[in-house]
Amino acid sequence: MNEDDLIRRLRERLGPSSPIGDDAAILSLPGLAGEIAVTVDSQISGVHFVPGLDPAHVARRLLAVNLSDLAAMGADPGHAFLALSAPAGFDHDRFFDAFVEACRQWNVTLAGGDLARCDQLVATLTLIGTKPERGRWLRRSDAKPGHDLWLGGTVGESAAGRMLIARGAPEDHPAVRRHLLPEPQLELGRWLGQQREGAAMDVSDGVAIDLHRLCRESGTGAVIDADALPFAGGFFDLCKDLSVDPYELALASGEDYVLLFTLPPGAQPPGCRKIGTIQREKKIEWIREGRRRLLPASGWDHLKT
Amino acid sequence: MNEDDLIRRLRERLGPSSPIGDDAAILSLPGLAGEIAVTVDSQISGVHFVPGLDPAHVARRLLAVNLSDLAAMGADPGHAFLALSAPAGFDHDRFFDAFVEACRQWNVTLAGGDLARCDQLVATLTLIGTKPERGRWLRRSDAKPGHDLWLGGTVGESAAGRMLIARGAPEDHPAVRRHLLPEPQLELGRWLGQQREGAAMDVSDGVAIDLHRLCRESGTGAVIDADALPFAGGFFDLCKDLSVDPYELALASGEDYVLLFTLPPGAQPPGCRKIGTIQREKKIEWIREGRRRLLPASGWDHLKT
Repeated sequence: MNEDDLIRRLRERLGPSSPIGDDAAILSLPGLAGEIAVTVDSQISGVHFVPGLDPAHVARRLLAVNLSDLAAMGADPGHAFLALSAPAGFDHDRFFDAFVEACRQWNVTLAGGDLARCDQLVATLTLIGTKPERGRWLRRSDAKPGHDLWLGGTVGESAAGRMLIARGAPEDHPAVRRHLLPEPQLELGRWLGQQREGAAMDVSDGVAIDLHRLCRESGTGAVIDADALPFAGGFFDLCKDLSVDPYELALASGEDYVLLFTLPPGAQPPGCRKIGTIQREKKIEWIREGRRRLLPASGWDHLKT
Repeated sequence: MNEDDLIRRLRERLGPSSPIGDDAAILSLPGLAGEIAVTVDSQISGVHFVPGLDPAHVARRLLAVNLSDLAAMGADPGHAFLALSAPAGFDHDRFFDAFVEACRQWNVTLAGGDLARCDQLVATLTLIGTKPERGRWLRRSDAKPGHDLWLGGTVGESAAGRMLIARGAPEDHPAVRRHLLPEPQLELGRWLGQQREGAAMDVSDGVAIDLHRLCRESGTGAVIDADALPFAGGFFDLCKDLSVDPYELALASGEDYVLLFTLPPGAQPPGCRKIGTIQREKKIEWIREGRRRLLPASGWDHLKT
């Protein structure tokens, strides 16, 4: 059973009103006029980053991947709650210095948490966000046939960075930096929330599997033009050095933390790349060098070993 | 450095407006009229429970200890977010069956979360609660000299249960059940929220250390009458069998998950025991067999090995 299967079964158990399915849950609370967005994500040593990574990097990355979920909802970040389980000897001071500083940078208030001992470093963050004035929540389920499909930034470079780290590359290599410190696209999320329609999510597990998820929630298909995918400078040379297929990294690896979204034709989201269109037929396809084929839902699965 | 030291330093770094310090954080969010209470707590294999514990028990205990934090704030539980990091082979179905069932029992909506692999089982729950109509938030800082000091239930039995588990006692032993499945005092919390004054918290790390925390937040001291402490039936015999001092278990062990609270003299909280009074002098004392002495802030510390 993989992560998507388990979540599907959990949603069946919880019934149709369950808020599970987007990058963050939208809650309407008794006695409160208005809604909040809540997201939870963990960073685990040996799973999301190499053991021994600088605690300052762990702290910043933890905040960034959670902020990316709020960006995908069009939310403004508000409060953070940190559960930190760390082995003896962990440098809490270094972690918290970086975490508190990153919170200031992104206008987040660290409001509570839990500290414990654990053999493996497990850092879990809960982030609460609110809806900007005159904005709307972005959802995976709002894609419509005929919408253009967009990416908010380059893909594949983070996966290349992960491979470089395993080979001992220095932290100042651009791909390593991109992997360690993703940049949440909060401003783009806010911009999308001002548009009248369109779906959104962030690419955390890979363009292919994440696009399957977006289309499943929307009841649509999609077709991607692989030649239109945005890549970082030098990405093809880097892939040659690493002996990997750049399109596999770009489509079937994850942790890019850029927004994948749809808009009606004619929209011009700033600094983004149009990579395809949403189609009525529930197939996910990609075109490369004129050949059209099915795009499998491959990517990072958190329950696959 | 222990957990309290670390939290104190973190609060200094965050400034005086930080909501850290109570069992849950009270948040006021932009664009929303009203406040919410948010708490986060983890259950970790080998730390909070013995490795190999039935996943159904882990699930129920995780929810119960977090509900206890909301009870300590006088909050009504609302939404839960679960980050579950489990080793290969973990019985997710058994965990989720019990968790979803316990959520129904306590009127909690599982609204999101995160699943990952980890060598050690780490389950972190974020709970969001709201303030009952005409209620007030309960805080640690509202104890006043002259207030009576109360306990919402018996103490020490959970610690005895933990010792019994280590000795292989069966799960149907009352003390083992008490340890595995604490009963959050939500109804008592709601009752306290209807009173005009008084402080509250839940006993998670031990009466002694938790009373020190309550008095520190309130700027007061307290004196406990040890002969008034409420014990479960057969507790003294059980302690004799275990060769432990019942007062040490009752005061310096934790995980009782009963409310420790203060009220002006004359109040009659249902089913509770008065164990002492709050005093102006900032000393925490206890009286046993007529002898008055200082009560050290000993108890469970999550960062001590």
